[in-house]
Amino acid sequence: MKLLRYGPVGQEKPGLVDKDGKVRDLSAHVKDIAGDAISPDGLKKLAAIDPASLPVVEVERYGPCVAGTGKFICIGLNYSDHAAETGATVPPEPIIFMKATSAIVGPNDNVEIPRGSLKTDWEVELGVVIGKHAKYVSEDEAMDHVAGYCLINDVSERAFQAERQGQWTKGKSADTFGPTGPWLVTKDEIEDPQNLKMWLDVNDHRYQNGTSATMVYGVKYLVSYLSQFMSLHPGDIISTGTPPGVGLGQKPNVFLKEGDVITLGIEGLGEQRQNVVQG
Amino acid sequence: MKLLRYGPVGQEKPGLVDKDGKVRDLSAHVKDIAGDAISPDGLKKLAAIDPASLPVVEVERYGPCVAGTGKFICIGLNYSDHAAETGATVPPEPIIFMKATSAIVGPNDNVEIPRGSLKTDWEVELGVVIGKHAKYVSEDEAMDHVAGYCLINDVSERAFQAERQGQWTKGKSADTFGPTGPWLVTKDEIEDPQNLKMWLDVNDHRYQNGTSATMVYGVKYLVSYLSQFMSLHPGDIISTGTPPGVGLGQKPNVFLKEGDVITLGIEGLGEQRQNVVQG
Repeated sequence: MKLLRYGPVGQEKPGLVDKDGKVRDLSAHVKDIAGDAISPDGLKKLAAIDPASLPVVEVERYGPCVAGTGKFICIGLNYSDHAAETGATVPPEPIIFMKATSAIVGPNDNVEIPRGSLKTDWEVELGVVIGKHAKYVSEDEAMDHVAGYCLINDVSERAFQAERQGQWTKGKSADTFGPTGPWLVTKDEIEDPQNLKMWLDVNDHRYQNGTSATMVYGVKYLVSYLSQFMSLHPGDIISTGTPPGVGLGQKPNVFLKEGDVITLGIEGLGEQRQNVVQG
Repeated sequence: MKLLRYGPVGQEKPGLVDKDGKVRDLSAHVKDIAGDAISPDGLKKLAAIDPASLPVVEVERYGPCVAGTGKFICIGLNYSDHAAETGATVPPEPIIFMKATSAIVGPNDNVEIPRGSLKTDWEVELGVVIGKHAKYVSEDEAMDHVAGYCLINDVSERAFQAERQGQWTKGKSADTFGPTGPWLVTKDEIEDPQNLKMWLDVNDHRYQNGTSATMVYGVKYLVSYLSQFMSLHPGDIISTGTPPGVGLGQKPNVFLKEGDVITLGIEGLGEQRQNVVQG
């Protein structure tokens, strides 16, 4: 299934995409795409609904594809070729940092350059959405705790991240720095999350052209690994890192400016389009 | 006012402490100590209630004193003498890191040593609770966005934090690593947040004996500073750093073990008591 949330900011309704690509309203069946609705049982119930029985809706705005996100956990330097382009090496175990959940926006909402920004940059990433509480789970059990996948732009301010004293969260958390969606694609639809093409353009120039096949620490490993350090809850998102081609990796560097248009996508997970504005 | 939440985990009710120290039930007036209830208007309404008109309750368990926390933001090395004891220097601007909100527990709930932990440590901290959305606010405006203060134990696993690859969040986010409360003390009750005694004992041995007077970056500055990097929302907590005396600062180091009892307090903000258990 492709689950989604549509409508004005803060008033999103749940929906799904039918086999013809039409969006249908799920609000008679679930309150939101969150919590119990994305648990294994919740997803089973949704899968049993005949999409043809649901009202077709015209979508003016897609919201973030999942609600009730308590943690937005990101993995740093998780593609060997991206690590190289930023002058870093692949770490011997995953680097974890947090993005503020208040950074989450819809997939096509504006991206706002924060005041004082010098180096606002892009990162196409495969997001993993947790569907069931996970604590101390093994790699073998990990997928039982995953609801599905989504497309994320892990927008990043490199000067805030690296030149303003310690801890990357400072450069990762500005409002609008987390476009998420359009869809939460349930895991049954994605045969191999470690073999998905992913790309990102700015003003129609292709900067990122990668595949999740070059991810260092894969989805199963990450879910298990993270669950050793903290409980994962339904709606939590893990953003698994970015392939090469970020602005910081260009020679000379390229960063976002007002008026830029970012488009990005991951095979099977849909596309995003953001206008860049000044905050 | 001293606001609080009491009752079993996940079923907490709102309450307040009256002038005789009795806890009274606020649930006829507000749903929870969260969101609008702790906005400037919400607090004004609560202050207009005669506590004597509220039912007295016997509290078996205090919950975290605020709900709906979207961000648990911590400030690193914010006491010059604590920085020195850990072998670090005071940074030229605040270090920000995030603690998972899933780490938040009541003030007297057990602290759980995570599996694989080698160095679980304590940190008494002054918490600042946001009451009103803050974005790009000045130092002069900052206090308009603060609802009040609370006591926090920023429990930390030093090996996870510093020896397991990058970004402190890994050692700060385990379940139970954020005892918060007992009270959200509204800002009108705290004459000077930069002059509060604070202490922490383990098994009745006093390890931390400090004052917020030696905080490097004060509350006003931090609220303004953080609001340049991300929006702050009602219920967000800023934990402002710890004075000297953490386990990592002892010679030789002292870390928590099963059976230990941690007690801590801040002048005007109440006390906490945690039993340490193995996770």
